[in-house]
Amino acid sequence: MIGGGQGAFIGAVHRHAAGLDGHYELVCGAFSRDADNNQQTADELSIASERAYGSWQMLIEEESKLPADQRVQVLAIVTPNHLHVEVAKAALAAGIHVFCEKPLAISLDEAKSLQPVLASQPVLLGLAHTYIGYPMVWQARHMIENGELGDIRKVFVEYPQGWLSSALEKDNKQASWRTDPSKSGGSGCMGDIGTHALNMAEFVTGDKVTKLCADMHTHVEGRRLDDDGAALLRFAGGASGVLIASQVCAGEENGLKVRVYGEKGSIEWFQMRPDSLLVRSVDAPMVTLRAGQGMPGLCDEALSRCRIPGGHPEGYLEAMGNLYTSFAKAVRGGQTGKADGVPGLVDGLRGMAFIETMLSSTGSEAKWTDFVDCA
Amino acid sequence: MIGGGQGAFIGAVHRHAAGLDGHYELVCGAFSRDADNNQQTADELSIASERAYGSWQMLIEEESKLPADQRVQVLAIVTPNHLHVEVAKAALAAGIHVFCEKPLAISLDEAKSLQPVLASQPVLLGLAHTYIGYPMVWQARHMIENGELGDIRKVFVEYPQGWLSSALEKDNKQASWRTDPSKSGGSGCMGDIGTHALNMAEFVTGDKVTKLCADMHTHVEGRRLDDDGAALLRFAGGASGVLIASQVCAGEENGLKVRVYGEKGSIEWFQMRPDSLLVRSVDAPMVTLRAGQGMPGLCDEALSRCRIPGGHPEGYLEAMGNLYTSFAKAVRGGQTGKADGVPGLVDGLRGMAFIETMLSSTGSEAKWTDFVDCA
Amino acid sequence: MIGGGQGAFIGAVHRHAAGLDGHYELVCGAFSRDADNNQQTADELSIASERAYGSWQMLIEEESKLPADQRVQVLAIVTPNHLHVEVAKAALAAGIHVFCEKPLAISLDEAKSLQPVLASQPVLLGLAHTYIGYPMVWQARHMIENGELGDIRKVFVEYPQGWLSSALEKDNKQASWRTDPSKSGGSGCMGDIGTHALNMAEFVTGDKVTKLCADMHTHVEGRRLDDDGAALLRFAGGASGVLIASQVCAGEENGLKVRVYGEKGSIEWFQMRPDSLLVRSVDAPMVTLRAGQGMPGLCDEALSRCRIPGGHPEGYLEAMGNLYTSFAKAVRGGQTGKADGVPGLVDGLRGMAFIETMLSSTGSEAKWTDFVDCA
Amino acid sequence: MIGGGQGAFIGAVHRHAAGLDGHYELVCGAFSRDADNNQQTADELSIASERAYGSWQMLIEEESKLPADQRVQVLAIVTPNHLHVEVAKAALAAGIHVFCEKPLAISLDEAKSLQPVLASQPVLLGLAHTYIGYPMVWQARHMIENGELGDIRKVFVEYPQGWLSSALEKDNKQASWRTDPSKSGGSGCMGDIGTHALNMAEFVTGDKVTKLCADMHTHVEGRRLDDDGAALLRFAGGASGVLIASQVCAGEENGLKVRVYGEKGSIEWFQMRPDSLLVRSVDAPMVTLRAGQGMPGLCDEALSRCRIPGGHPEGYLEAMGNLYTSFAKAVRGGQTGKADGVPGLVDGLRGMAFIETMLSSTGSEAKWTDFVDCA
Repeated sequence: MIGGGQGAFIGAVHRHAAGLDGHYELVCGAFSRDADNNQQTADELSIASERAYGSWQMLIEEESKLPADQRVQVLAIVTPNHLHVEVAKAALAAGIHVFCEKPLAISLDEAKSLQPVLASQPVLLGLAHTYIGYPMVWQARHMIENGELGDIRKVFVEYPQGWLSSALEKDNKQASWRTDPSKSGGSGCMGDIGTHALNMAEFVTGDKVTKLCADMHTHVEGRRLDDDGAALLRFAGGASGVLIASQVCAGEENGLKVRVYGEKGSIEWFQMRPDSLLVRSVDAPMVTLRAGQGMPGLCDEALSRCRIPGGHPEGYLEAMGNLYTSFAKAVRGGQTGKADGVPGLVDGLRGMAFIETMLSSTGSEAKWTDFVDCA
Repeated sequence: MIGGGQGAFIGAVHRHAAGLDGHYELVCGAFSRDADNNQQTADELSIASERAYGSWQMLIEEESKLPADQRVQVLAIVTPNHLHVEVAKAALAAGIHVFCEKPLAISLDEAKSLQPVLASQPVLLGLAHTYIGYPMVWQARHMIENGELGDIRKVFVEYPQGWLSSALEKDNKQASWRTDPSKSGGSGCMGDIGTHALNMAEFVTGDKVTKLCADMHTHVEGRRLDDDGAALLRFAGGASGVLIASQVCAGEENGLKVRVYGEKGSIEWFQMRPDSLLVRSVDAPMVTLRAGQGMPGLCDEALSRCRIPGGHPEGYLEAMGNLYTSFAKAVRGGQTGKADGVPGLVDGLRGMAFIETMLSSTGSEAKWTDFVDCA
Repeated sequence: MIGGGQGAFIGAVHRHAAGLDGHYELVCGAFSRDADNNQQTADELSIASERAYGSWQMLIEEESKLPADQRVQVLAIVTPNHLHVEVAKAALAAGIHVFCEKPLAISLDEAKSLQPVLASQPVLLGLAHTYIGYPMVWQARHMIENGELGDIRKVFVEYPQGWLSSALEKDNKQASWRTDPSKSGGSGCMGDIGTHALNMAEFVTGDKVTKLCADMHTHVEGRRLDDDGAALLRFAGGASGVLIASQVCAGEENGLKVRVYGEKGSIEWFQMRPDSLLVRSVDAPMVTLRAGQGMPGLCDEALSRCRIPGGHPEGYLEAMGNLYTSFAKAVRGGQTGKADGVPGLVDGLRGMAFIETMLSSTGSEAKWTDFVDCA
Repeated sequence: MIGGGQGAFIGAVHRHAAGLDGHYELVCGAFSRDADNNQQTADELSIASERAYGSWQMLIEEESKLPADQRVQVLAIVTPNHLHVEVAKAALAAGIHVFCEKPLAISLDEAKSLQPVLASQPVLLGLAHTYIGYPMVWQARHMIENGELGDIRKVFVEYPQGWLSSALEKDNKQASWRTDPSKSGGSGCMGDIGTHALNMAEFVTGDKVTKLCADMHTHVEGRRLDDDGAALLRFAGGASGVLIASQVCAGEENGLKVRVYGEKGSIEWFQMRPDSLLVRSVDAPMVTLRAGQGMPGLCDEALSRCRIPGGHPEGYLEAMGNLYTSFAKAVRGGQTGKADGVPGLVDGLRGMAFIETMLSSTGSEAKWTDFVDCA
């Protein structure tokens, strides 16, 4: 693991998730540039002191010298955004699989620089679009792919959070780097959660946004990046929709919700009640599909992502655990490039293109803007 | 009552609502151009046969001849849109108060033609923006006016319905006139429910939309008017937001929802659970305010619109009943122009201006468009 | 109307409900023994002063003298319990139909005294078990009767309220008579809401409780009647269950809920979201049936009790309005004894028998007790 | 781990939960008496083959021979009930800490036989009353202990499941042993989930049931143990209540719910939405406390059991993970007997006493029965 020292947020989340199914053992890390923090984190995690490295460069260098059966196999990158590509490139080049936080980079160009190295090595790059790990998201995708909703007409995806309603960046490490363009990239809110919303909309529909018309805002005085925005969307398959992502929705927790409406019916999924998928129809009562082993009406992709019977809630860590487990299977199965069931480089590129398209579109003369090419 | 014969929808709704609090007696009507329908409706409603008129013109003419204490006092207009202004104008000119279905007209210009007659007579014009009749909508407005949320930043209003997902207009009277430009005006969905969404957003915030960027669609083949749309919004007070109104959200019933986020907190109200108002805060747990006589935390405007104690649900008819009761009080109190607590001409003009602004803005070159002047 | 003067609760509820569908006109009343209150109530309700009677006896006497086409047809009795039978008996004997609040009497014996008069006159007796007026309660009954759940195994009915958590009877008129044995009868909570719970359980299942084992309590110091209780239940058809009724569940509003489990599936209905019926199954996902005109999956009994399309909530007043409308149809149709679709004498007798059975069963030596004979 | 081979249910759950926080490494096991199953399970779990033991006896014997720093420290017992005590006794005697599934034994007497061995060794015994691991359960307990609800009057605990609605025991391993008296003990449903319900009621209130009046049933033909039951409850502190536990509530998943009503307010917690605690009050609107790091209004006991910020759902595995983590801390801290924050022997004895009290009380002559002494 690179990053994830004391005071960090997402590193511990990755460790919980990776531990869930027994596929991973944490063997080494460069958790913090602060030597004390790094050492204390390593101690807490029972990492052998010789494998608690002072920098990510040292980690890659030293681990590469170890025999193949002792060497780290998968590197989790949980640093702020500006280090993602640099670290990932070095790790991939050294033959180490990478599971990286999103957004993938601080710019689309930077992200694209991962393409050659990923193509040239027998390695995998996974991206922590965690919400894609929920079973009911796969169920939704399955039903849409299967034509159960008919042709898709409308896609509404929203992601309201409230934690940046005030100038939290003055005191809070998480808020600080997320609102610092040098560490976060050209967007705050769109990079942090707008990319999740886009990824969800495209994953569930199996479709791509082709153009959008954006309206981004910065509400908190002195903040250097956007903390809020929305966009009208058009999809390749003919659907239209709306994307909302905001971090100044006071009092909201983590309200990612996606709704997809087709000719015949619709689905609704809400991250804060992730084990339910609402299925509506033009001519039949609403059905609530429920996650869980053995639950009726679920497709294999959903069932295989449930560990326990219905009524025993699984949540966010289990969703990320599903990504980690799919990634482990891909490693063992010798897959390269992209791991089945795990967002990868293409998703990362689309996320960066989304940020750039939003930034181009928004403004006092907002206009429909073609989605930036990222193939 | 003008309109509301057999096969109509909203006429019966008005009769239920008006009956709820005992302020109205239905004494005369011109329910249908079809003489049989008109007569049967009158019989069902126990209207004296001499006051079941063959046309709205006859109704106004004959009723005007009656002594003041026998004459109809309030005329409910529940016809398709294209008759609203013509009938209203004649009734108001004859000194009869008018309670009219929305949207007010088939164009802004037509709506404006009501201004002189309303100004010149001691009469009232009320508009059936029924959702404004719910107690918790008044509670939300009160809290925002009172500064409990701080400065308003975001307003999300959505109104998904699914009943026009297919070409229902072939067989269904309601669908037929609503998709016929000659009866409905220049817009289908925006006129029918978009105006409700706008009205709700402006009522609750006490603010006005100043510009918007729209995306309207017609999904069902052969349909002559829009059945779906969305817009990015900007408000005079500095807030921004999103409005969604669609009648092709397959499986949705009548999902009007409004969310308003300020610096300090937020409110959420959903028409399908109208007796709850969710109040969130940046630094305190969520509170659920509940409608009902004697319920804690409610303002007078909300309490006065509750008939029974909390836990005994009141719904849509009670909301419309609240408008009718406020209108009755205004009549008795000798108010003129606009009745306290009831949407009126200004709301009607804004609704028409909204439709025209949306139509101007939408298109392949959608752009931010200033809200059409309607003062 | 007898009772329902200023300061009363349920009288106004009856007036709203009776006004909803246009079948009733309030023509006379004896609203209060207090002459001022009586007169003011009559004035508010626009009752002709000669028909605002000083006592219920006068009302019956004077109205009986009027020609048949002017005389009151239906008397609503909304007094405290101890007057129900006395007034009802006199009205029925005078040929006036009676729609009476529940519980029917202050004792089973008193209630039985209504049998001969009801049998001897061409009159109807209706009882305000209002919750039976909800469409989805009829839907539940229909499905169970139809065998859709298979043989019934478990019935859970609960009715938590919190309004009597403190000694409210000191200041509150409603609380005062409800906790006064001379006005309320032998039970407080079981009479007031336990009877609703029993009625719901028996109505929905179409089955009868044959024995029960009770535990009743009085929690508030100085209170003279029970304010809380529960019972284990056995039904004639082989099911067992639990009934809970309490008025000291601090913070609860009016939480009547019924759940019925059969071999194949189950239903759940909750009065505070009355337009949804949850239908679960052993081998299929949960279905949510929704009230409303034209909603899929509803039986005729449910549909005929919906005034407006799905998504436009109807509530408690509409439920009572359904009883009033069924009662009006029965009057017009010349039914006698019991009105179709409206609880009647048999329900009232069972309610009184329930109270007496509960009182027999509870105590430090609580035991299974056969349901008191009330045929 | 003892038990938990292929085809078992709860073993894998324990492994997920123990892996979550990184405090455990699975080093040895006797997963199944079937040698193939045992070996395959060990292989899947990457257990060294010499530590995949053919029997629990061998495991304890062989592990005891290893040096202290290599020997197993904590044994998870996830077998059917009849082996719990025998295995636990041997392990505890060998100085190995035990984390055991519930119920603790097949009889109270058998359970009591653990007392001397636990008292005589520096070891810990933990019991998997998993629901006690949820943060909001600790929040509820804290508020009640703190007097925030006032004196407690009513406790309703219910646990409806539907999975045993049919004779599943013919084909299903889980259902088979749970309905077999020789493996499950004297009760099916009460042992399996009734004990959870009792434990929850007593944990949250900090009070003890002193007497109860039960009604147990077996609904499925040929089933050898109860599959359903309910009881009226009395608590030492003066409260009364109702307990429902059933496995024939067709269509229910895992609906453990607890509600506690005091003089001033009440709490409601539902296992299927475990991150919310509803807090009601006699004189203030309902508040929804939410689990999550940094969420407002939470006590330390709740906060310390949250891994991630509010809005990122944690579920059942996290709840069990909390028990495992508390147990690990107790091991490291040198606690003996009972681990802080983890149910232990006393809870196990109360569970067994509950089963025996229920069995004594139920029957055609059901009666209030004193809770069996288990001190």
